[in-house]
Amino acid sequence: MTIHTHQTAPTQFVSINGIRFAYRRFGAKSSVPLVFFQHFMGNLDDHDSALTDAFAADREVILFNNAGVASSTGTTPNTIEQAARDAEAFIDALGLSTVDLLAHSMGGLIAQQVALDRPELARRLVLIGTAPRGGEGLGELPPDIEALFFKKYEHQEEMWLPILFTPSEASQAAGHAYLARITARKDQDVEVSMETVQAQAAAIAAYGAEKDKTYAHLKELRQPTLVVNGNNDIIIPTINSYLLQQHIPNAQLILYPDANHGAHHQYPELFVQHAKLFLDAE
Amino acid sequence: MTIHTHQTAPTQFVSINGIRFAYRRFGAKSSVPLVFFQHFMGNLDDHDSALTDAFAADREVILFNNAGVASSTGTTPNTIEQAARDAEAFIDALGLSTVDLLAHSMGGLIAQQVALDRPELARRLVLIGTAPRGGEGLGELPPDIEALFFKKYEHQEEMWLPILFTPSEASQAAGHAYLARITARKDQDVEVSMETVQAQAAAIAAYGAEKDKTYAHLKELRQPTLVVNGNNDIIIPTINSYLLQQHIPNAQLILYPDANHGAHHQYPELFVQHAKLFLDAE
Repeated sequence: MTIHTHQTAPTQFVSINGIRFAYRRFGAKSSVPLVFFQHFMGNLDDHDSALTDAFAADREVILFNNAGVASSTGTTPNTIEQAARDAEAFIDALGLSTVDLLAHSMGGLIAQQVALDRPELARRLVLIGTAPRGGEGLGELPPDIEALFFKKYEHQEEMWLPILFTPSEASQAAGHAYLARITARKDQDVEVSMETVQAQAAAIAAYGAEKDKTYAHLKELRQPTLVVNGNNDIIIPTINSYLLQQHIPNAQLILYPDANHGAHHQYPELFVQHAKLFLDAE
Repeated sequence: MTIHTHQTAPTQFVSINGIRFAYRRFGAKSSVPLVFFQHFMGNLDDHDSALTDAFAADREVILFNNAGVASSTGTTPNTIEQAARDAEAFIDALGLSTVDLLAHSMGGLIAQQVALDRPELARRLVLIGTAPRGGEGLGELPPDIEALFFKKYEHQEEMWLPILFTPSEASQAAGHAYLARITARKDQDVEVSMETVQAQAAAIAAYGAEKDKTYAHLKELRQPTLVVNGNNDIIIPTINSYLLQQHIPNAQLILYPDANHGAHHQYPELFVQHAKLFLDAE
């Protein structure tokens, strides 16, 4: 039997509700797999092998494209709620009854919604660089920040350097190492379509616009939750991570120094150690 | 050679500047000892063996009473700045040129001041349940909270249950386990005098009153710093831990769920794991 890794795990497909979901699944067999929820504009290859392979040492890792995203078929919905239902359908299609979710940015919005919709399905949540519904500045990027997503770069993946990392030398060096990791795989996933990008942007904006300063809905999030971010997230302001910790009944917060929206890509070893302590707790 | 632990390490004394400092020192010989800075009203026995013995497995641990506190002689000053100079004198008297500081509450104020005064002396800081100078609500306890420190309890150590722990069953159970640990030692340290309590309270209030909403002085704190707190610290509001992380150039923040001013006593194993990852980082 071949032991697959991030770079060798084949892209597989599973169909449900007329959607053919693309996914990769690898790692040590475990009772509770870890499902990664991807960020805005991301496909299977934007996941970070420094994280996935480290987690795969002692649990199954599942990466997937949600409905309409990259190599998955179907239509990307313009609400987080529908994206959550699509993600739930994907997990159901794999026949999994309990999973842990590791979710970044927009993926974190969807993961929270899954945890609210299907509390028995999601055992533990790791929410990175994300916000509560109605969070501060969620889906309201200043024009100069929004432009980072849509300008042309010499190598297009370089867009992630200012979005996920800080301007410091150390953070940019970590960013270049991350770019090398996400471009290492030969059979790269297809690009995310402009239609999907627009639907995702609309979904994030709508979710951000549902303001409730009491964040009362977070009281219903009963899962043990680890909230992670950089000290200065320019995409989803860091204060939202603090708010998540303050309002989710059982949440731990970890903020890293000199870090932006991609703190887990900047400090992969430390992040994995922190996340495993959390995921493996009783 | 006897291997000493928290409960067996003898109380020793060292004199400098006319002050005879009481201290205990134990644990594996290491290049950088870990010096604990105690909270308001605390003496040598209010340190937690679940923490100190765990750290002592791979480094030297030093507990001490600052000037005028319990079994140390001298006068407890009514400024954090002088308390820092006293603590520096104590470390100097031991002949140590580099130490890590693990500091709780008022101890965290003093530790920050030591790190600013003597950057070469303090290598890394662990700041628990504390605030920056001028922090929000620092030294401005609501009367019902302040009263917790001065009322009579059946067993006086029970004052720490509402001060350091939350009302939840799990937190109170952790609190009782903590009380059992701090009362286990036979040769208990002497009590802190009312004179010391008043001077400490005045020092905290004066430090809290030095308002500067930009917290500009924290930019000078160059040490790698780990900031830790519970999600709902009723003694030094949790937002101060967030502010420390936001303003110290190289700070990591960890907030624990269902926890008050004594989160590290509530989750000693997890806290020690987190703190060792931080202290042992390159």
